[in-house]
Amino acid sequence: DLPLALIAGPCQIESEAHARMMAGRLAGIAEAAGVPLIFKSSFDKANRTSADAPRGVGMEEGLAILARIKRDFGLPVTTDVHLPGQCAAAAEAVDLLQIPAFLCRQTDLLIAAGATGKPVNIKKGQFLAPADMTHAAAKVAAGGGEAVVLTERGTFFGYHALVADMTGLEVMRASGHPVVMDATHAVQSPGGASGRSGGNRRMAPVLARAAVAVGVAAVFLETHDDPDRAPSDGPNMLPLSWLPDLLAELVALDRVAKARRTGF
Amino acid sequence: DLPLALIAGPCQIESEAHARMMAGRLAGIAEAAGVPLIFKSSFDKANRTSADAPRGVGMEEGLAILARIKRDFGLPVTTDVHLPGQCAAAAEAVDLLQIPAFLCRQTDLLIAAGATGKPVNIKKGQFLAPADMTHAAAKVAAGGGEAVVLTERGTFFGYHALVADMTGLEVMRASGHPVVMDATHAVQSPGGASGRSGGNRRMAPVLARAAVAVGVAAVFLETHDDPDRAPSDGPNMLPLSWLPDLLAELVALDRVAKARRTGF
Amino acid sequence: DLPLALIAGPCQIESEAHARMMAGRLAGIAEAAGVPLIFKSSFDKANRTSADAPRGVGMEEGLAILARIKRDFGLPVTTDVHLPGQCAAAAEAVDLLQIPAFLCRQTDLLIAAGATGKPVNIKKGQFLAPADMTHAAAKVAAGGGEAVVLTERGTFFGYHALVADMTGLEVMRASGHPVVMDATHAVQSPGGASGRSGGNRRMAPVLARAAVAVGVAAVFLETHDDPDRAPSDGPNMLPLSWLPDLLAELVALDRVAKARRTGF
Amino acid sequence: DLPLALIAGPCQIESEAHARMMAGRLAGIAEAAGVPLIFKSSFDKANRTSADAPRGVGMEEGLAILARIKRDFGLPVTTDVHLPGQCAAAAEAVDLLQIPAFLCRQTDLLIAAGATGKPVNIKKGQFLAPADMTHAAAKVAAGGGEAVVLTERGTFFGYHALVADMTGLEVMRASGHPVVMDATHAVQSPGGASGRSGGNRRMAPVLARAAVAVGVAAVFLETHDDPDRAPSDGPNMLPLSWLPDLLAELVALDRVAKARRTGF
Repeated sequence: DLPLALIAGPCQIESEAHARMMAGRLAGIAEAAGVPLIFKSSFDKANRTSADAPRGVGMEEGLAILARIKRDFGLPVTTDVHLPGQCAAAAEAVDLLQIPAFLCRQTDLLIAAGATGKPVNIKKGQFLAPADMTHAAAKVAAGGGEAVVLTERGTFFGYHALVADMTGLEVMRASGHPVVMDATHAVQSPGGASGRSGGNRRMAPVLARAAVAVGVAAVFLETHDDPDRAPSDGPNMLPLSWLPDLLAELVALDRVAKARRTGF
Repeated sequence: DLPLALIAGPCQIESEAHARMMAGRLAGIAEAAGVPLIFKSSFDKANRTSADAPRGVGMEEGLAILARIKRDFGLPVTTDVHLPGQCAAAAEAVDLLQIPAFLCRQTDLLIAAGATGKPVNIKKGQFLAPADMTHAAAKVAAGGGEAVVLTERGTFFGYHALVADMTGLEVMRASGHPVVMDATHAVQSPGGASGRSGGNRRMAPVLARAAVAVGVAAVFLETHDDPDRAPSDGPNMLPLSWLPDLLAELVALDRVAKARRTGF
Repeated sequence: DLPLALIAGPCQIESEAHARMMAGRLAGIAEAAGVPLIFKSSFDKANRTSADAPRGVGMEEGLAILARIKRDFGLPVTTDVHLPGQCAAAAEAVDLLQIPAFLCRQTDLLIAAGATGKPVNIKKGQFLAPADMTHAAAKVAAGGGEAVVLTERGTFFGYHALVADMTGLEVMRASGHPVVMDATHAVQSPGGASGRSGGNRRMAPVLARAAVAVGVAAVFLETHDDPDRAPSDGPNMLPLSWLPDLLAELVALDRVAKARRTGF
Repeated sequence: DLPLALIAGPCQIESEAHARMMAGRLAGIAEAAGVPLIFKSSFDKANRTSADAPRGVGMEEGLAILARIKRDFGLPVTTDVHLPGQCAAAAEAVDLLQIPAFLCRQTDLLIAAGATGKPVNIKKGQFLAPADMTHAAAKVAAGGGEAVVLTERGTFFGYHALVADMTGLEVMRASGHPVVMDATHAVQSPGGASGRSGGNRRMAPVLARAAVAVGVAAVFLETHDDPDRAPSDGPNMLPLSWLPDLLAELVALDRVAKARRTGF
């Protein structure tokens, strides 16, 4: 079991300047905490609740920004892909391809991601049981992919609510793939009468702590310098200022969790 | 309120001969019951549980088959699309474009479907509340689409189970769009340890009756001459032999439901 | 299959005068619709959200009122019991003992109810699967009870919400016991930050229609002359004025549903 | 925040000899781990799935056994009560009265428990949202009770499954009452076609770790020297032999969790 890693960044690439500022500050915070960082940001929010919502800078510009962040900050980077045709280009720019939860059963997308040879992080669909993620991982392998990461981001719990099932982390870990807890999307309140997704960011540290104690390879946290003004996922993103203390807590929990030798 | 219509056909186009046989027999059964029929079959099962599962004949051949069925049997036809780039071609062949439930928030797909000018049937994602479907419909309108149909196909109810919420039909009807009950997918048991989706076809008539009594524009039923040998969705498809009696029941219930003048 | 019956009344016995007024008006409405009526009202609301909420007239007075309504209006009556020690007294006054959903696994209560020899209507707990109600019925039989009725009143669907599973009606019917749809409690919104249960009475007719089309022995509806001033369950009770039209609809649907001869 | 405590014991009192053996061994294990122990065992399983299932030794004998364990081992003890009339007697024997989850809204039971003056541990009903437990606590206070403990034991997640919501622990903690995680009941599979509750004890340590990392006052674990032969709750009880290692892990996690000074 390797020590805890962090996948973090602002939900979407708002501008190169903003993404670089976030990458730099995150890199410093992660370094201070002794946690390996993968910088994440999206070039396109392809499934916003409403068609009017801001979608981001687009693939070409977004990937170029990520590639420059990777080069200049020496950080591994990741982003999400939505169509099979995006995988090859994304794989040239990033170190880890991310499959959105809604798309975790789209066979062509998983095969195309696998065919790039890059590691693929598949978010568990809200509508899938943890054990069924082995089939999604097998689709990546069918495309030629060798490394798969599985991410829990909450499962459907009645309308407008999610619940994160800690036993699902253990079930997915039994598949042999590294397991990640997406603590900020799991506190979303999907949909909602007002035409956007809500959320409760104060519960994200709760889920991060619980998941680290269960034993995960990484925690995924979307974060922003000013979440309430972010163009997407503001209610569930963490203020960047929370991260130093939160990471310190998570590292301490991770050491205890990974030190155990017991298997029941 | 128009009388009840039927959207039906085998889950996937297995061959032109099979699809034509099914279309012919369904046309006869629907005519006998006095129910307008839209023939549905898929050219690609793009989100099977497992990458090994049969996916169908492909888009080009599938659309050609549907176009010939439309021409030869005089039936309106429908099929599902998975990528924005498929919409224009599909719209040339079919009368109604269907958006899969997992994809009901993919903005580009909904806009592309709307841009064809054809009516678009959006299946409600298992992860969405009924009222939130207005945003999906608005994305079709943003693309230029004028007619939207909304379909209930069950909502997530713990792992490996769905539940169909009859009050959701009423909530979606309030949006002004015609509402359809997909009675055969709503009895699926998604995923499952064995790497395929299960289901209980005997419960599909239960959901169809309930939905018709609530008041729906159409019922969606996948059906097969030999469901247990079908390449996909066998456990939940109805044997074609059930349809005459079931349709007669549904027509009788529909007459009573549509005759009421009360509004509470 | 006998024609549809109705179990109805105000949630709690507010006073003898009010209960008699409701019984008389309901008797007239049911007679006009040709539907057998069982009058229901509670002498004690033993599990209100808050300790401050009005609980009713108490057992002794409540049972006496129900006995007089039975005698004077010639109506069968029913009420709910909460403790084993209440069953014998209640059975002397009423024709059908009702077990609350929260208490549907309390062995002693079910045995005591069965021991009275009166029919027992067990509401399915929100936390139980439909098929598991056979065990609750067996407990009544273990006490000596011969007749059991099973009632669906919604199952838990995330916090603060219920969903009524129409396939559950069919599953419970397979047990051989008559099945009832409680259409007004199934539209409750349990708990809630404000310390009382909410609800949406406009959805109760939706559930009643759906259940009757599936095929049930009776529909259970709580009703009030002025629900918004009722001491309990106001948000989900139906105004008495809705019942004539709703019953006429349900009778028409029931005739169609019970006329079918098909079994799939 | 006090250090973690443990509420543990066999599901039911099988015999005085067995209960004493378990109490002694648990006392030793807890002492070795430096964890305060409250010994729990039930005198009556009042809501078994089936009427045929063993229910235990009864109240009189059970309370006497618990009183002798308290006296001889110097352990605080707890047990669950099912009827208002049991509270006074139970309060003479035990240090903490436990209210079963199904009964957490029974007003009279909560008031009677509060009236004893003993602390009352209310298990959150599977059908209740965490924030709604303040109303249950208020009922105990209405009876005169001064100390309330709230226990999470899983919430309904589709038929035959529970999920433990880690954010619910945080919500209940905000009420000011100590919060307990019942890690063994939360891994039950309620009901089931075979007429008994199943469960997966291997997931109980997962939930215990997660909850301790979130920050709880105590963990509740049912345990047995030979769970597969236990008369109740065997599938979810932990073998006593697991406890030393598990407690050591939990104590280490608790120290980290309670040491944090951050509040987000």
